[in-house]
Amino acid sequence: MPEPGLIGAIPSALMAQAARAYAGKVALRYGEQSWTFAEFDAAADRLASGLVRRVAPAERVIVLMANRPEYVLLQCAIERAGLVRVPVNARSTAHEIDVILADCEPAVLFYDRTTADRVPAANGEAALWRLQVDGDAARGGASYGELSAETIDRSRLERATLDDLSSINYTSGTTGRPRGVIYTHRGAYLNCFGEIIHSRHDENSVYLWTLPMFHCNGWCTPWALTAIGGTHVCLREVRGDAIWDQLREHDVTHLNAAPTVVSTILNARDTGPLTRPVLITTAGAPPSPTTIAHMERMGFQIVHVYGLTETYGPISFCQSQPEWAGLSADERSVLQARQGVSMIQAEGLRVVDAEMADVPADGSTMGEIVMHGNNVMAGYYLDPDATAEAFRGGWFHSGDLGVMHPDGYIELRDRSKDVVISGGENISTIEVEQALMSHPAVLEAAVIGVPDDKWGERPKAFVVLHAGQSATPQELIAHVRAKIASYKAPRDIEITFELPKTSTGKIQKFVLRDSEWAGRIHRVHG
Amino acid sequence: MPEPGLIGAIPSALMAQAARAYAGKVALRYGEQSWTFAEFDAAADRLASGLVRRVAPAERVIVLMANRPEYVLLQCAIERAGLVRVPVNARSTAHEIDVILADCEPAVLFYDRTTADRVPAANGEAALWRLQVDGDAARGGASYGELSAETIDRSRLERATLDDLSSINYTSGTTGRPRGVIYTHRGAYLNCFGEIIHSRHDENSVYLWTLPMFHCNGWCTPWALTAIGGTHVCLREVRGDAIWDQLREHDVTHLNAAPTVVSTILNARDTGPLTRPVLITTAGAPPSPTTIAHMERMGFQIVHVYGLTETYGPISFCQSQPEWAGLSADERSVLQARQGVSMIQAEGLRVVDAEMADVPADGSTMGEIVMHGNNVMAGYYLDPDATAEAFRGGWFHSGDLGVMHPDGYIELRDRSKDVVISGGENISTIEVEQALMSHPAVLEAAVIGVPDDKWGERPKAFVVLHAGQSATPQELIAHVRAKIASYKAPRDIEITFELPKTSTGKIQKFVLRDSEWAGRIHRVHG
Repeated sequence: MPEPGLIGAIPSALMAQAARAYAGKVALRYGEQSWTFAEFDAAADRLASGLVRRVAPAERVIVLMANRPEYVLLQCAIERAGLVRVPVNARSTAHEIDVILADCEPAVLFYDRTTADRVPAANGEAALWRLQVDGDAARGGASYGELSAETIDRSRLERATLDDLSSINYTSGTTGRPRGVIYTHRGAYLNCFGEIIHSRHDENSVYLWTLPMFHCNGWCTPWALTAIGGTHVCLREVRGDAIWDQLREHDVTHLNAAPTVVSTILNARDTGPLTRPVLITTAGAPPSPTTIAHMERMGFQIVHVYGLTETYGPISFCQSQPEWAGLSADERSVLQARQGVSMIQAEGLRVVDAEMADVPADGSTMGEIVMHGNNVMAGYYLDPDATAEAFRGGWFHSGDLGVMHPDGYIELRDRSKDVVISGGENISTIEVEQALMSHPAVLEAAVIGVPDDKWGERPKAFVVLHAGQSATPQELIAHVRAKIASYKAPRDIEITFELPKTSTGKIQKFVLRDSEWAGRIHRVHG
Repeated sequence: MPEPGLIGAIPSALMAQAARAYAGKVALRYGEQSWTFAEFDAAADRLASGLVRRVAPAERVIVLMANRPEYVLLQCAIERAGLVRVPVNARSTAHEIDVILADCEPAVLFYDRTTADRVPAANGEAALWRLQVDGDAARGGASYGELSAETIDRSRLERATLDDLSSINYTSGTTGRPRGVIYTHRGAYLNCFGEIIHSRHDENSVYLWTLPMFHCNGWCTPWALTAIGGTHVCLREVRGDAIWDQLREHDVTHLNAAPTVVSTILNARDTGPLTRPVLITTAGAPPSPTTIAHMERMGFQIVHVYGLTETYGPISFCQSQPEWAGLSADERSVLQARQGVSMIQAEGLRVVDAEMADVPADGSTMGEIVMHGNNVMAGYYLDPDATAEAFRGGWFHSGDLGVMHPDGYIELRDRSKDVVISGGENISTIEVEQALMSHPAVLEAAVIGVPDDKWGERPKAFVVLHAGQSATPQELIAHVRAKIASYKAPRDIEITFELPKTSTGKIQKFVLRDSEWAGRIHRVHG
């Protein structure tokens, strides 16, 4: 009889099932190289067997590298070895890596030539086995080549149970010190189903890795795509020409991309015709109507999702309704820009006030977006206080402010730290950014609060224009005033060539704020 | 923080999520009638609220009716009311219904005009509230119309937790007394994901109900299809002309069908062109190569799956491999007729010997097919002895005999009760049937063991020919001998117009056996 509480399998077991169902198919491509599902599965088993022989269960394993095929292999192998994966942002500085090492005290660190310059010399007092996956370099243990040649011992590869830690994902952090977000196998398993279903993945999927694999474990896609027999196409550098080459060479069907990657695709030099329609799932900010229209003309379909590292990636999606077809493009784009409704694996998504009561579903009362369920993290690693604070009232507090519409769709109004409070009025910087983005010359926009002696704060915008286009700040301000309440319109607009961003494409507003607030003693927001 | 052991939602909660995501879409069609997702959800809430006010939690509710829209509504409403659904075969005799009533002691029974003649007068000593869903008739409580007009009280609609009983499915029974197979909400939730993924359902799916909803809860499709925004098309009578009408009128994309329904579709009078390709998932027996070729020419795609009532419907599927494309049609059909590999939600599927050791993966050593995981029943209702027997060694024993091929695919060689043991040799009746089915004139075949004074048993075949085709028993025997070992070939073949079947299309071999063995004292098989 089923064991009570037992459910599902650890995600790497889904990969093993796939090795039977799709044995002779190509699981993974990287340049000229490819691996079938059977080859992939055996390679992961060899690595896992080698790890089991050398590392005690539940030790942490850092993965610090580009989107290489070894990343997908390790996603599987580390889990099969009963170890905890810690995917670290490949653009981290040596100092940032040290902070993570001190927090999670890993036993092993995998890296590649792109990150070799930042591999730490040692892990404080403890030993740290460091292996380069694209070379023979190794300190404190075997080389990657030796590990890859281990004999398989399947009997020792089932050390993990469903509630064990799957991975620790350090938030890339627009502000402050990174915190380790804990994923369990149970949560990852369910999220695999959600990813497959909402991305409509099947064994014909060809997925291009423009999303960094270190970001929320690549939204669970390394497991999910393999589980359903799709093909990964690894891509080390997210450049426009490289993306277009891969799209055409491998008949790509899917990619996930931050808005900045969507811009990169859009603005590449050679944007020739696609061989197949490509579904782009984008998160971070709603794509502008102009972007959507442009991409659709090129043969892309854009799906807009919302989530956080703490929710294993996407948790909501903006499903189109049949009656929207009868609306004007402008009306429709307002509805499409919303964060939408729960994905199928999501178990709870609300907008609440300070007392945890649902705000009225009126599309205007702001509240905090909260979630619960198996697709919400198990907590912050070794930080019970931060965990308790995040889960106060039994729900995870996203820190994002939004509204609930009468049709049950949520709409993000602001990351709470980015809200501008001017003369006591909350101004949603996203609303202002959307108004700016609706101008055809605008490629990207970021709005922050800047000091104002009378109002406390007022909004200021930083804008990047499309190549070859022009617009003056005055034109843009007039455009915004025609769209939204004028008190929300920025008085200053700075036209710039680039916005500061995290490696996953989130605009780092704190960098913009820091320069604007320099020298001020009191800050409204930290 | 997530509660340990908590996972997922009860499936009717998926339906509530869908009511937001697909509010204005059509959820359900029946003739000229249709319901949007929002209408469907509210109707289910009304019924559930009415049930909660009148029935104590965890009481059993019989559903005895055709594939009407109320069936889908009740699948949701009974669950939301915290009650246990008991879907009963709509062709059951009054006596068979009495046996089920005595076993599960229901408090409520829903029926329609097609089953009204078999509604019991009373439930022994206990009261039994009986309601007709397509009329005002009601005994022991409110009418269906009154129940449908109840005010909604959502606060009372969350009485069920994940490990509670979802439903009791009495096995339709090719032999013996029916047993109540217990499904939990947890298992049903996971199976929904499996159904969506393997049937490639999305919000564009239009699903025609040729599978009886009482059969394994319709393979979880009432929940699964609604959860992903697809449209149910109810069909009261499974007739060829009615199926073709619906296929064309509603642009159907999917249906699930026993082989007998596939034959019905194939042999209908008006088989004009399809408006869209239709995916048919078929179980019960592998479709013959002739059938597959014929259906594909008409625009159908056939997927062959295997499962049992005890596994919530399908648990394995026969995934095609790219290298099969290079084989001859005959070679390919042999591979395609296998039961295949685990579906994505399946957690364990093995072929074992009497000591629970895996049989060699040689494609010839027979063993019993066993399963475990959340997509296997929680047990037989109120029958701990039968449950313990079925789960001996920690795995569910299917009673089906099969082999494991070197590529990890299982192949069913016989339902164990149907095996023919002749002169000490096991003869797989399925193998003989497949050999017969490969003859172009043969529509259906059933092989049983008949008494033989020398060998104990020998195989005998009952064959139905395609309309307008002819073949003599001698020709068919010669055809079989050319295909498989001659000791397996039947010496007698009876050409007949019809085979005895259950309402779900399984051939009732016990009926054939009973007549052949009449008068014999000793029987090899019961």
